Amino acid sequence: MKQAQAEQIATTLGELATPCLILDAERMERNIARLKARLDGLGVMLRPHLKTSKSVDVARRVMTSPSGPATVSTLLEAEQFAAAGVRDIVYAVGIAPAKLPQVLALRAGGADVTVVLDTVEQAQAVAKASRQAGTHIPALIEIDCDGHRSGVLPTDRQLLLNIGRTLEDGAELRGVITHAGDSYLARGAEALRRCAEVERRSVVDAATLLREAGLPCPVVSVGSTPTAHNAADLSGVTEVRAGVFVFFDLVMAGIGVCQVDDIALSVLATVIGHQRDKGWIVVDAGWMALSQDRGTRKQAVDQGYGLVCDAAGVPYPDLIVAEANQEHGIITVRPGSKGKLPDLAIGDRVRILPNHACATGAQHRAYQVVRGASDRVEAEWSRFGGW
Amino acid sequence: MKQAQAEQIATTLGELATPCLILDAERMERNIARLKARLDGLGVMLRPHLKTSKSVDVARRVMTSPSGPATVSTLLEAEQFAAAGVRDIVYAVGIAPAKLPQVLALRAGGADVTVVLDTVEQAQAVAKASRQAGTHIPALIEIDCDGHRSGVLPTDRQLLLNIGRTLEDGAELRGVITHAGDSYLARGAEALRRCAEVERRSVVDAATLLREAGLPCPVVSVGSTPTAHNAADLSGVTEVRAGVFVFFDLVMAGIGVCQVDDIALSVLATVIGHQRDKGWIVVDAGWMALSQDRGTRKQAVDQGYGLVCDAAGVPYPDLIVAEANQEHGIITVRPGSKGKLPDLAIGDRVRILPNHACATGAQHRAYQVVRGASDRVEAEWSRFGGW
Repeated sequence: MKQAQAEQIATTLGELATPCLILDAERMERNIARLKARLDGLGVMLRPHLKTSKSVDVARRVMTSPSGPATVSTLLEAEQFAAAGVRDIVYAVGIAPAKLPQVLALRAGGADVTVVLDTVEQAQAVAKASRQAGTHIPALIEIDCDGHRSGVLPTDRQLLLNIGRTLEDGAELRGVITHAGDSYLARGAEALRRCAEVERRSVVDAATLLREAGLPCPVVSVGSTPTAHNAADLSGVTEVRAGVFVFFDLVMAGIGVCQVDDIALSVLATVIGHQRDKGWIVVDAGWMALSQDRGTRKQAVDQGYGLVCDAAGVPYPDLIVAEANQEHGIITVRPGSKGKLPDLAIGDRVRILPNHACATGAQHRAYQVVRGASDRVEAEWSRFGGW
Repeated sequence: MKQAQAEQIATTLGELATPCLILDAERMERNIARLKARLDGLGVMLRPHLKTSKSVDVARRVMTSPSGPATVSTLLEAEQFAAAGVRDIVYAVGIAPAKLPQVLALRAGGADVTVVLDTVEQAQAVAKASRQAGTHIPALIEIDCDGHRSGVLPTDRQLLLNIGRTLEDGAELRGVITHAGDSYLARGAEALRRCAEVERRSVVDAATLLREAGLPCPVVSVGSTPTAHNAADLSGVTEVRAGVFVFFDLVMAGIGVCQVDDIALSVLATVIGHQRDKGWIVVDAGWMALSQDRGTRKQAVDQGYGLVCDAAGVPYPDLIVAEANQEHGIITVRPGSKGKLPDLAIGDRVRILPNHACATGAQHRAYQVVRGASDRVEAEWSRFGGW
């Protein structure tokens, strides 16, 4: 009801109720075009990770076709995007056996959903579920390229072959997949190029090992926004997954993968108070609207809970949300800066750039779509949450 | 559709899809009874803060009557609870003038919604909106008791009187309100008693000052779970607001306001992998399910992203979620502990206690309600989000 109301009424930024999530479509389109051109140049397919947007409207703009390919982080995403016509989906979180009936239902509905796993136990469960259903669930073996999270070491020949052979007894070994989680800690193009090469080598080596043992490995999948934007060579790789590139955020700007003015997402907030003695401006966007992501804490420039811009999206120098309660944000000049607190009155509006687009987006139900410096709200796109 | 399906099918914990939010109704009822008994003893009314639960089902159990009183942190909460019959609501975040039409609509619908403010500009906006609507919007002046966030200093007589008189020119000065945010940083009963007394004195002093100037001040409102549970005397206070007491969490346990086995909220998760060399168990609950709240980071015991229990809710010694990605949690023994990693297989389930119940709850759309050690799911209660 509220959303319908917003769609009817809010035609300018000034008419929106705060806090809310603003999406600059001009920046988003630029970000999408930039990665697509890069991967075209490298001759590799883009399989965008839709966990960043959780929105059919954004998905249709970021995918290379209405039917995919796509990556998801939950089966609810798979269900939502399958219902919207996406047919080629990798569910890129290790499969829990209890979730296989849901995967089978999605596949029976026409979506080619591929699962990911890194243990023989999971492979047994996938093979068994496939045999029982009279189908072949495709699976990718997760490779651990940098010790960051899950996966089989690319040198662990025995485990790779065990998983592969277990899958081939009823299911389908479709390939290998990795994610260079450590790239988020790298700084500078040279370090990121090295991360990308480590990521590429890990899956190419694992694929070689599987193929030499007579096992199939058609898919060789890598992915993270920092490595996607810095890989110099992707020989042997068949697809790149990346998510946050569509919106970008302050963490990506801190790593050097984008500029602050590439960031397409922001939270619109209203000034609701001052503590002038302390140099504070209080706004109605706390951690519920901004998320508690503090991903820039360990970067060279700590952006607090977000970098503050004027209502048109132009950053104030060194102005951040320094503290956040549930529905209160406290804006200050960044400690150590000589920046000046702007003269904002009760009721004035600001836009706050997020540390992490996936986390901030997840706190909201819809995007209010604007374009560049225009204050016209051209659409409201819904987004979903949950599992 | 998924919710309806869950209601029909999931009758035991084992049948629930993970990750999901578990509410132990037995613990919740004990927590509610404990604070109600305490405030009855002190002779003060409870105005529970419903931002913690955002659930009509929980609200009906925590309020002292079906019509309130209640506290909310957003106007969406006010609308949802008003639609469910709550009639006495304090919207406890400083009012933005652009939100006054929504407040007027709620009041016209029969809900006595009170706003909060700490500037003359807000008081002017509330008075003007009242005059234009031919009604009297009630407002509480926010008092800054501990330098934590918003509010007028209780000694700032001139500002208090200016705000009060501005309100009385069309609106209604209903009283004063404060929140001892610093109590979250205190440790031990004696320190918390001092916080509670500072909180009490700030509003009682401000009320005295307003009344001596001939202004009305019927409501004297304090509130935080740590001070509510430790105040020795609440003379002059008319009501206590508290929210997190209904569920409790690891931050509250760290402060000493509850025990770990009072915590009524947990996230059910499934084991999806191991990194045995590193001592890691990987589960399908990352920061999307747990939130990124790291409120115990600065406490004596850092609980990571949450304390891990078995499927029945019994904590493993020193087992925490040490790292969290969007949909992956990495469970380890707490650094420095001699605890042992439990022997958990792929598909096994754990329950993770939250650092901050408000933040973890906000990541979910529903509560799966259980009672004590029983694995029967007796209800699914929906919760809402957004603004």
